[in-house]
Amino acid sequence: MFVVDTYDVIVIGAGHAGCEAALAAARLGVRTLICTLNLDNIALMPCNPAVGGPGKSHLVREIDALGGEMAINTDKTCIQMRMLNTGKGPAVYSLRAQSDKKVYQMTMTKTLENQKNLDVKQLLITELLFEGNKVTGVVTELGEVYRAKAVILATGTYLKGKILIGDCSYAGGPMGQRSAEALSASLRQAGIRLMRFKTGTPARVDRRTLRTEEMEKQEGDTKGHAFSFLLPRQNRNTDCCWLTFTNEETHRIIRDNLHRAPTCNGTVQGIGPRYCPSIESKIQRFADKKRHQLFIEPEGKMTEEMYIQGMSTSLPVDVQYAFLKTIPGLEDVKIMRPAYAIEYDCLDPLQLDAALAVKEKEGLYSAGQANGTSGYEEAAAQGLIAGINAARFVLQQDPFILTRAEAYIGVLIDDLVTKGTQEPYRMMTSRSEYRLLLRQDNADLRLTQKGYDIGLVTPERYAVFQQKQQAIQEALKALKECAVTPTAITQEKLRRIGTAPVRTGTTAYDLLRRNEVTYDTLQQVFLLPSVSAEVQEEMEIMVKYEGYIERQAEQVEKMNRLEQKLLPPSIQYDSLTTVSAEGREKLARIRPRSIGQAGRISGVSPADITALLIYLEQYKREGKDHVSN
Amino acid sequence: MFVVDTYDVIVIGAGHAGCEAALAAARLGVRTLICTLNLDNIALMPCNPAVGGPGKSHLVREIDALGGEMAINTDKTCIQMRMLNTGKGPAVYSLRAQSDKKVYQMTMTKTLENQKNLDVKQLLITELLFEGNKVTGVVTELGEVYRAKAVILATGTYLKGKILIGDCSYAGGPMGQRSAEALSASLRQAGIRLMRFKTGTPARVDRRTLRTEEMEKQEGDTKGHAFSFLLPRQNRNTDCCWLTFTNEETHRIIRDNLHRAPTCNGTVQGIGPRYCPSIESKIQRFADKKRHQLFIEPEGKMTEEMYIQGMSTSLPVDVQYAFLKTIPGLEDVKIMRPAYAIEYDCLDPLQLDAALAVKEKEGLYSAGQANGTSGYEEAAAQGLIAGINAARFVLQQDPFILTRAEAYIGVLIDDLVTKGTQEPYRMMTSRSEYRLLLRQDNADLRLTQKGYDIGLVTPERYAVFQQKQQAIQEALKALKECAVTPTAITQEKLRRIGTAPVRTGTTAYDLLRRNEVTYDTLQQVFLLPSVSAEVQEEMEIMVKYEGYIERQAEQVEKMNRLEQKLLPPSIQYDSLTTVSAEGREKLARIRPRSIGQAGRISGVSPADITALLIYLEQYKREGKDHVSN
Repeated sequence: MFVVDTYDVIVIGAGHAGCEAALAAARLGVRTLICTLNLDNIALMPCNPAVGGPGKSHLVREIDALGGEMAINTDKTCIQMRMLNTGKGPAVYSLRAQSDKKVYQMTMTKTLENQKNLDVKQLLITELLFEGNKVTGVVTELGEVYRAKAVILATGTYLKGKILIGDCSYAGGPMGQRSAEALSASLRQAGIRLMRFKTGTPARVDRRTLRTEEMEKQEGDTKGHAFSFLLPRQNRNTDCCWLTFTNEETHRIIRDNLHRAPTCNGTVQGIGPRYCPSIESKIQRFADKKRHQLFIEPEGKMTEEMYIQGMSTSLPVDVQYAFLKTIPGLEDVKIMRPAYAIEYDCLDPLQLDAALAVKEKEGLYSAGQANGTSGYEEAAAQGLIAGINAARFVLQQDPFILTRAEAYIGVLIDDLVTKGTQEPYRMMTSRSEYRLLLRQDNADLRLTQKGYDIGLVTPERYAVFQQKQQAIQEALKALKECAVTPTAITQEKLRRIGTAPVRTGTTAYDLLRRNEVTYDTLQQVFLLPSVSAEVQEEMEIMVKYEGYIERQAEQVEKMNRLEQKLLPPSIQYDSLTTVSAEGREKLARIRPRSIGQAGRISGVSPADITALLIYLEQYKREGKDHVSN
Repeated sequence: MFVVDTYDVIVIGAGHAGCEAALAAARLGVRTLICTLNLDNIALMPCNPAVGGPGKSHLVREIDALGGEMAINTDKTCIQMRMLNTGKGPAVYSLRAQSDKKVYQMTMTKTLENQKNLDVKQLLITELLFEGNKVTGVVTELGEVYRAKAVILATGTYLKGKILIGDCSYAGGPMGQRSAEALSASLRQAGIRLMRFKTGTPARVDRRTLRTEEMEKQEGDTKGHAFSFLLPRQNRNTDCCWLTFTNEETHRIIRDNLHRAPTCNGTVQGIGPRYCPSIESKIQRFADKKRHQLFIEPEGKMTEEMYIQGMSTSLPVDVQYAFLKTIPGLEDVKIMRPAYAIEYDCLDPLQLDAALAVKEKEGLYSAGQANGTSGYEEAAAQGLIAGINAARFVLQQDPFILTRAEAYIGVLIDDLVTKGTQEPYRMMTSRSEYRLLLRQDNADLRLTQKGYDIGLVTPERYAVFQQKQQAIQEALKALKECAVTPTAITQEKLRRIGTAPVRTGTTAYDLLRRNEVTYDTLQQVFLLPSVSAEVQEEMEIMVKYEGYIERQAEQVEKMNRLEQKLLPPSIQYDSLTTVSAEGREKLARIRPRSIGQAGRISGVSPADITALLIYLEQYKREGKDHVSN
């Protein structure tokens, strides 16, 4: 047994989860190794060439606010940006970037390779090493041993990955990659429960064969954007996307060939993503829908490959050609890589705690698609948290946990570890009960201080955050102090900026509540400090939605009280006879941190919660050793 | 059976051979498909990050002169250039470029994807289709059929590729890639003889762990260079390399562990490259050598990976670490990817004719490492010729063949198809008997006209070539017309440019023969036209080496007479009783095009050649049907 090296933290996998995990751990000062089965595929985007979008952009902004990398890497390498949902409220505004896949990878690779405390290696891990329940290292396919105090699983779709196209199937990671065949068995042997999920991607087609004149062009916003709070908002558009639609003929061809799709004919056991389904699954589930939208995205500046978002399938290639050619703009299409489905092993996330640690093990963490999620952003968010917590474990610090009221990251992880998932989990704004608080615009205000406190936010980022915070406070103060009296001059000013006259004395702050009034129109007529676009946007949301925001803050207050009622780790739930049988079983399995989390477990009733609260009171009175004996 | 499409030419493989083959065919106007098992790995450099060097730079320049892509792609993407062997004669001057591997790939991918008449697809080919001896198409692993009039095999090291590191081995292409398992069987079934070769690469190490102060820095030339005759000579250096050496301790460790190297302990059957051997093979073959030079090369601008040229091995990772750490500068080395050996199937090139067509088949061509060569440049050169000839076959034109006197490409292919190879064949200047004629500087003068005649050279390139040719002629004429008389003024001029006085009247042309005289010094004192650096270089070589060049041209003349004595394809060698038994057998197997080629076949004696010449005379007298009945 050749022990090559000893690390504090080893990250298995260098996809979006692995990259954030490794960077976070290394930046927190612990010696970290990230390994991948192919160094050429660090930060690979095996699915669509985009970052962000509804729910997901919130995650990206939160990752950034905490000191993660995804936002910066996206801003540096994207070829188009659009703000989605601007017709709706600010809670659901969502930034989306089109990425240059190869440049995204190369840029992230460079960041990893130049990170202090971080080594980057091509290794295929076949086994985890344990002493008792404590993880102690990993073994590679070449028989090398790397020891570590903590290990993070970020295996994506590579664990016993299996590619499926029509009646052809073979072991493999995302198209063209190797799969990791041995590690699943090692995890099972360690008592870890694995699930079998599947996902898929559409065909990549040759841009030269598209009739773009028959599709709707979608260009980026001319207004500048940035995911990262550190980078300037600017117009980064260098390419465009295209919209087109399926039709009844497309659907007929798919329906006629369902028996040839391994995801439909029983060949595949894995469970697919509800919110990113294959086209055959969409056609079955929404049988009355006459058309589905497709989004044709460039894969990068140096390639003619285009991604047909919305057309993921496991149907054989002849059917792929047949249905693609029915679609306006794709009549002459040539496929460069066929669509495929992929089945893979992943962990049942109910085995994890809110720090993303495997509960029954010491030092073992898991993040990303390996925890049953889908999406680069969901993966990266978990990677960040797992990386932080693995480092904090090594440094003997308390776990870093975000609540549902603090971040979408909190919602994501709480959902996973409390409710588990029966299918690849995708983030959506509707999953958050406090979405007016958890906006993408205020992720920095919500989280930068926390990131700074744990040592992940750099002084540079912290200074930017403090300046913004201060600018907001000063501008709000100026607005409140700017008296608006009903004089003729004032009324004339208000007329000029297109808003109604005032009847009594008020302030600029109150005027800003009006729908049609913006900070910069007020500035035209009142003496107010100049502020950046970010500060203006933030302030306007704070003022215009003040009432709603306050109400949600009160709800959070209530929830927090339950969230702060921690359940002692020593509780033996099977002895709590006042709790229902189902409740006892679920509580024993999931071992929630708090009454709040316990209440979200399916099968735990309000009566069970009451019983738990009574138990907790009694426990506190009698001292903590009451039950553990 | 789903027939997806029908092409004129299908190229299997998108490495250096495949890329040139596909571009050449498409540029000659035939509908071409290039397929690869992974679109992300077009023009992959699985071995060292460099193009050119002795013998190889000549190939690159020839590829360029004929209208190929390698030189242009190298110039556009390299990070350092050096002219090697400048201390020796111009015949062996060799340009070498350090490449940015990823950018090289991306740039070549963009060129392929934007080439008219060329489709680029990710397909794993499992079978060739034949009608009788005529190739008709290919079958993919998904069961798709693509029909074609001609197919070019450019399978590199992927055919039944097997990775070997210590006692670990598994099916795979170059590290991290899939292998092509099924195609070998299809080739064998078609009666094609396969050989088993091996090659290897060294470890890639983390630049951050090198002690560069203990190694010798090697920077690029400050003088500008270019591989392509189309691109400006300029300084493209943005990074440097490092030299270091093995020592006796390194060698002791390797010797002590030879039993653990699959290439030494009998595990590997494949035959390795003599001129690019593994370190264990070097230690065995040159047992008295105290040290071997290593060359540490950056893999690209966006990565910290460094390539340890000279240190290829199949020894296990613990031994790799042990011996690397004995080397000055590598004491703290961290491996990012381990060294490995790879075994693969390739064609016995004796089955090919000089057009790189498989002799017993119609429409089947083969190029590159699949023909038993090593090196990107050798691969690209064959790819170009196979691509040209497949297109010419489709267009019903005569094959395009370069002789040994015209190009290193001619030497390469003649060696392969006449002598075969027992090990991966590498080009060296010593393989050419006319190397004073076949210089890298005059590849354009030798070949551009030919490339233009077959339609591969663009009008733009042809104009550049004509201008250069004309400038040379004009300058030579001016030199000859520039009378140098022994006047006092002239002698003073000669003194000023550091050369001896003249005794009698002569010309500037004759002065240029002097070692110390260059065209630009002559220009300082005589009225001569201004010329580019390329023209000056060319002219000086022509004048200074005129005598040698003329003598070699006479030899070529002689050889050409034998080369032009074509042997009729219908000869039945077994009936030629005047030829020795061994001679008959070899001739029947290889079926040489000409008496010249026949003379180079090992086992064919001078007496056999005399007998063949007599037969040929008789054949011509009696009419060509004499023997074929």
